[in-house]
Amino acid sequence: MSRPQPLPRSACPFFYSLATRWADNDIFGHCNNVVYYSWFDTAVNRYYIEHGGFDPASATIVGYVVSSGCDYFAPVSHPAELDLGLRVTRMGARSIAWEVAVYLSGDDSSRATGRFVHAFVDRRVDQSADIPAPIREAVSRLLVE
Amino acid sequence: MSRPQPLPRSACPFFYSLATRWADNDIFGHCNNVVYYSWFDTAVNRYYIEHGGFDPASATIVGYVVSSGCDYFAPVSHPAELDLGLRVTRMGARSIAWEVAVYLSGDDSSRATGRFVHAFVDRRVDQSADIPAPIREAVSRLLVE
Amino acid sequence: MSRPQPLPRSACPFFYSLATRWADNDIFGHCNNVVYYSWFDTAVNRYYIEHGGFDPASATIVGYVVSSGCDYFAPVSHPAELDLGLRVTRMGARSIAWEVAVYLSGDDSSRATGRFVHAFVDRRVDQSADIPAPIREAVSRLLVE
Amino acid sequence: MSRPQPLPRSACPFFYSLATRWADNDIFGHCNNVVYYSWFDTAVNRYYIEHGGFDPASATIVGYVVSSGCDYFAPVSHPAELDLGLRVTRMGARSIAWEVAVYLSGDDSSRATGRFVHAFVDRRVDQSADIPAPIREAVSRLLVE
Repeated sequence: MSRPQPLPRSACPFFYSLATRWADNDIFGHCNNVVYYSWFDTAVNRYYIEHGGFDPASATIVGYVVSSGCDYFAPVSHPAELDLGLRVTRMGARSIAWEVAVYLSGDDSSRATGRFVHAFVDRRVDQSADIPAPIREAVSRLLVE
Repeated sequence: MSRPQPLPRSACPFFYSLATRWADNDIFGHCNNVVYYSWFDTAVNRYYIEHGGFDPASATIVGYVVSSGCDYFAPVSHPAELDLGLRVTRMGARSIAWEVAVYLSGDDSSRATGRFVHAFVDRRVDQSADIPAPIREAVSRLLVE
Repeated sequence: MSRPQPLPRSACPFFYSLATRWADNDIFGHCNNVVYYSWFDTAVNRYYIEHGGFDPASATIVGYVVSSGCDYFAPVSHPAELDLGLRVTRMGARSIAWEVAVYLSGDDSSRATGRFVHAFVDRRVDQSADIPAPIREAVSRLLVE
Repeated sequence: MSRPQPLPRSACPFFYSLATRWADNDIFGHCNNVVYYSWFDTAVNRYYIEHGGFDPASATIVGYVVSSGCDYFAPVSHPAELDLGLRVTRMGARSIAWEVAVYLSGDDSSRATGRFVHAFVDRRVDQSADIPAPIREAVSRLLVE
């Protein structure tokens, strides 16, 4: 099994910027490994909202995270301006596999690369559901190879 | 005792913008009362860093929060772009009383107004200390009568 | 105006214990001022759930925080076992004023004392509402002087 | 590649209990995928502290997370009492691969199983370092084949 490698910016079709917060730093002065996942949640749900017509307050079909992971290559510390590169590595009828790469402003190599799978669920009946069409359409633009 | 009132933008001499995050929303779909305090920390420490020469990793004299509070006038929900208005209502030799007003982009009335007192401490001896001169100089520009 | 003082345990009619978490510590090695408010939320909502029949997932009448505050007397650091002392200083028809005192296991003086006002709201119409009877009954037992 | 499966309690040589907090729930009423990682951090660092002589405030050799991941099998919601099962799947000279399984009180199947690799670093020189002997000794007791 090959060792994970940082992702270059050219591998990502879409970016959001995100500013770190004071509370992101832990006792060792780096952004804590946990908060990276909150950045991923923020970026991907923002994409659903801004490009896929997703309204978290009223949506009945939503994405639940069924697995997640992250490789950390180099630390970042607050205060920092980050770019989050988004890409989709697989889209099924009812699930989407995301990757989110974390770049320090100006860097070309990701400091960390995260991934997670959203399985879509109809909250009214708590059952698996097809990805809503506007989300599918928006997300398909981020699908790589 | 008079009921607290929202603060107009004109009351604040300085602003930072801040984007909400997915995790800021609670089960009721509003940004949770707790996270406002993390926004205050982020804004005020950023001011120390960018204007007062503060380096959190190496600083020996730092501000500890000895009291804090917030009045919430109207909710905000993720996703939102916020403006945080900063002002200082009192500066002693060893402490600073801050106010931070939370505005939704475009609003003139604060959705919430927070306040906290930073008492400066020399971490090496865990004792009260004078505010470092570069912070004092930077913060004095935000002092309101 | 008198300086705030720690609260002795005898001032609190009810206690919950709470274990700190790794992420509660900030870059200075103390539990960050922000996380105290998440402890208060946890304790008070737990009291509503366990003693007032409150179900956060289905409740239509819920408490929104309209103001909050905290005085910090001495730091606590993870790992620590805390006792949270609960008391109610005022209960109106539609609002409750809470105090939550933070004790290190074995201490008699609070390390911090927080307070917040819950205003009850009917989420269906987003309007002020009477405190539900089972919550009123449970909370009245914590009312001091 | 086989689909990940919940871990039975018998697979874990050690457990800590952990109470959820109000802020762990997200807008959908379940504990958010992100906070599971804060539980893992809390449990594993607690083990280092209580069994491996680790003092986060003074330690010069500390574990940095270089990769992490989690499979989510079934949700948990606040309020809940959780048991976190700890085990070590690999220990090298300078790194430890942890697994942490999340059980609802009374359940035998993990609701989620997380994993992460701690690489030990000497903070004074920011270089890779051997696992301190007391941590190595304590952690070896949790090593599973």
